[in-house]
Amino acid sequence: MPRKELSDGEAPTAIHSNAQAPHPRFQLDEAIHQPVRLSILGLLAHSRDVEFAFLRDHLGLKDANLSQHLTALEALGYIAITKGFVGKRPRTWVAMSDAGRAAFANYLDVLQQIISQSEDQ
Amino acid sequence: MPRKELSDGEAPTAIHSNAQAPHPRFQLDEAIHQPVRLSILGLLAHSRDVEFAFLRDHLGLKDANLSQHLTALEALGYIAITKGFVGKRPRTWVAMSDAGRAAFANYLDVLQQIISQSEDQ
Repeated sequence: MPRKELSDGEAPTAIHSNAQAPHPRFQLDEAIHQPVRLSILGLLAHSRDVEFAFLRDHLGLKDANLSQHLTALEALGYIAITKGFVGKRPRTWVAMSDAGRAAFANYLDVLQQIISQSEDQ
Repeated sequence: MPRKELSDGEAPTAIHSNAQAPHPRFQLDEAIHQPVRLSILGLLAHSRDVEFAFLRDHLGLKDANLSQHLTALEALGYIAITKGFVGKRPRTWVAMSDAGRAAFANYLDVLQQIISQSEDQ
């Protein structure tokens, strides 16, 4: 009887003696996990464009602190910042990018795995 | 007609002009939010007693690193550590305390609030 061959759907034997997959915490996006970032993205996930001033007041942040986090999230490609005017008053809007939505969804998925780990996994 | 008195169940008028409640991120237990701690508690939440060696290997940690986090969680009263023997071999078991379960449940609740914040809240 021929030896069973690995099909496409089967993983090859792990190189390590411990074949267990790495714990999901290694996949947790720490750029999102930081509480202020998580709060910003949590809010943006349910909105299209959010005003800078609203974010600042809603999250209880100082201008400089919010700016710092937004700059970091923009550098990661997770948000887009646009500036404009309402009448003569300058406004800054913040919106989640498609990449941001994907990263946030993945973050939530990994978080769920971490929270619901049991000894069997 | 007499002026309505505050009953026990009613909060007095907020001192601040902005009566909005503080963002839930201020209630997030940062001692739990740290990824390794979250991973430890996530696992303990679904178990009774977990062996130190299992936690270490499952979470991909070094002895010293795991010990450090367990000591911190024990100091907070979130876990209990017991030492014993299986035959002649020493063993260390870790279990979540009732306070730990309550803190973890509260953490998950706050996290859920942060994640599902919308502009109306």
